[in-house]
Amino acid sequence: MSAPVVAMVGAGQLARMTQQAAIGLGVELRVLTDDPGESAAHAGAGVQAGSPDRLADLRALADGADVVTFDHERIPPEHLAALREDGHRLAPTPEAKRMAQDKLLARRTLSELGIPVPAFAAVQDVEDVRAFAAAHDGWPVVLKAARGGYDGRGVWICDDEAQAADVLDGLDGPGLVETFVPIERELAVLVARTPSGASVVYPVAETLQHDGMCREIVAPISTPLRGGIARRARELAVRIAAEIGATGILAVELFVTPDGLLVNELALRPHNSGHFTIEGCRTSQFEQHLRAVLDWPLGDPGLAAPAVATVNVIGPADGSDPRDRVAAALAVPGAHVHLYGKEARPGRKLGHVTVCGESVDAARRAARRAAALLHGEEAA
Amino acid sequence: MSAPVVAMVGAGQLARMTQQAAIGLGVELRVLTDDPGESAAHAGAGVQAGSPDRLADLRALADGADVVTFDHERIPPEHLAALREDGHRLAPTPEAKRMAQDKLLARRTLSELGIPVPAFAAVQDVEDVRAFAAAHDGWPVVLKAARGGYDGRGVWICDDEAQAADVLDGLDGPGLVETFVPIERELAVLVARTPSGASVVYPVAETLQHDGMCREIVAPISTPLRGGIARRARELAVRIAAEIGATGILAVELFVTPDGLLVNELALRPHNSGHFTIEGCRTSQFEQHLRAVLDWPLGDPGLAAPAVATVNVIGPADGSDPRDRVAAALAVPGAHVHLYGKEARPGRKLGHVTVCGESVDAARRAARRAAALLHGEEAA
Repeated sequence: MSAPVVAMVGAGQLARMTQQAAIGLGVELRVLTDDPGESAAHAGAGVQAGSPDRLADLRALADGADVVTFDHERIPPEHLAALREDGHRLAPTPEAKRMAQDKLLARRTLSELGIPVPAFAAVQDVEDVRAFAAAHDGWPVVLKAARGGYDGRGVWICDDEAQAADVLDGLDGPGLVETFVPIERELAVLVARTPSGASVVYPVAETLQHDGMCREIVAPISTPLRGGIARRARELAVRIAAEIGATGILAVELFVTPDGLLVNELALRPHNSGHFTIEGCRTSQFEQHLRAVLDWPLGDPGLAAPAVATVNVIGPADGSDPRDRVAAALAVPGAHVHLYGKEARPGRKLGHVTVCGESVDAARRAARRAAALLHGEEAA
Repeated sequence: MSAPVVAMVGAGQLARMTQQAAIGLGVELRVLTDDPGESAAHAGAGVQAGSPDRLADLRALADGADVVTFDHERIPPEHLAALREDGHRLAPTPEAKRMAQDKLLARRTLSELGIPVPAFAAVQDVEDVRAFAAAHDGWPVVLKAARGGYDGRGVWICDDEAQAADVLDGLDGPGLVETFVPIERELAVLVARTPSGASVVYPVAETLQHDGMCREIVAPISTPLRGGIARRARELAVRIAAEIGATGILAVELFVTPDGLLVNELALRPHNSGHFTIEGCRTSQFEQHLRAVLDWPLGDPGLAAPAVATVNVIGPADGSDPRDRVAAALAVPGAHVHLYGKEARPGRKLGHVTVCGESVDAARRAARRAAALLHGEEAA
């Protein structure tokens, strides 16, 4: 036998960091992209040219691979069904993957399982939104595209019917409405699960969003939240993984509200909220994802340091390139700089910085400082 | 500016693990090899086809790179001089690199600097060996090829003149003779040094050799040796790095003898004895090497766990492939498996396993068990 082959649909930074883990394990990673300069392709993963919109390209990617997995959600479900029909192993399965592709289906499924989620309803027109607002907490409400949104796209907070009507006019596909819940904190929990049903759960992380995009992740969560809430968040994540038959990494985003925990969204792939695991945990989410999809024994998800903080590096508004400032950022003690090999554009996620430390505050301060240096916001 | 480009002569496992670090830092790694299936090429480093024996190939590799570095010693010194003449930045410099290419020159240089080394002499014929033995501790003596040896090759222990004569007959190039020193323990110290002269030194590791090949590395060294000897080993390594103008990683191998520490060999590149740093230290030797050769700020070399052990994975005598047994090895708690993407051949270095733990003994036990499972020596 030679190296196991993992085929990954997509070639962004998640595939790129999976490639780093694949090199260590002696796994051959093959990615699908039309862009030979994309993040993972540039990092040397094997490239199958093509698009997930074309079944023939997906078939070429899957041919000879031990398992097919994903670094994004944008794969037509009917193509996934066809790949499985061909006899390919998919991790996650097409049914499980749908939980990240269709927000309405995910809400319904979790709700039926008794998992706490915000109140929601499918919406066709503004009448549906008005009725939902009347039946629940009134305005504002949250409108979402059921498919295709990420990093804050596809989510709108509407203060009144006029705004809701505007959103629905522009909506290309099914939508849902949710109550606007008072969010005190946002948490993320990663679970890794194998096709055989083994699972491990990572320490609960707290995420900080800005403009709908995740900017900071710290672990462990702070003391007032620990104990009951952390345990419950982990239990919910493990239960969801088992109930929906997740394989590979499942990321569960949760809201802490005055009424308790609510599950927000699911991702069935390595996730931005898990980048802290590369240095912060005994086994990174990327190695864990490979081990899980290959049905290999899972690794220790425990923290490797008392605390860890990750800050995302976003393309600065002035169009400058953080790659020109790496040396400055590396002068921050303990800063682990990760760059994704992407061309700088304002607002684009270009990398992240992780710092391990004795406390969340110390780690976060250092990670923020290194990120600020990469952003060109601070002199070295 | 786009990504910095580091050109590395060679494409073995050291280049492969450097590629993993390069992906994180957003550095473009380009390697030189005639074999597109070699370790680093297979991991997606950019490949310049060619051989270090041909200056034109080296020039093609160096063209447009920010710096040229090495994953082995087998580059003709006159080619290195020519590259520098062309205006390329080399890290290490040709002069420093010679310390790893010519054992006789290294012994002379260190000896002149007052660094403790085994007694040695250049030898042309068996008369020289006889005279050396008479003037020092008698037989046995150690004969070495001044150039080209590694992993125990190029080193012979000779019990008498007849054996020495045989060795000299087969020697293709200059040789040296050394006293056969009573080795109590073997240590290795890594120093990273930048062209600007900044340096950091890693914790002293103890290495265990078998048939001249490094099999195990543990850190920190055990208590009876710590303190004075560890401090002295680190001081020697830092001093050597500065004296010879090393840039990048310098690995210093030392013998603990009844008469104190003796420096054995130098390597001016990432080194097998430093693989423990990937999980065991805050900054791996591979990331550190890239930072050093690019003259970037160096990272924290401190231990990331109380203890760490690395055991090499060697091709089993039965010709079987450790890649077929990865899942079994990953079932050992804490085992980090690294495979180099090389075809299995008996005696060939194919990978390594690292385990971090509360004690050297616990880490070593687990790493040995995982390596034994990869070797097929033990049931899961």
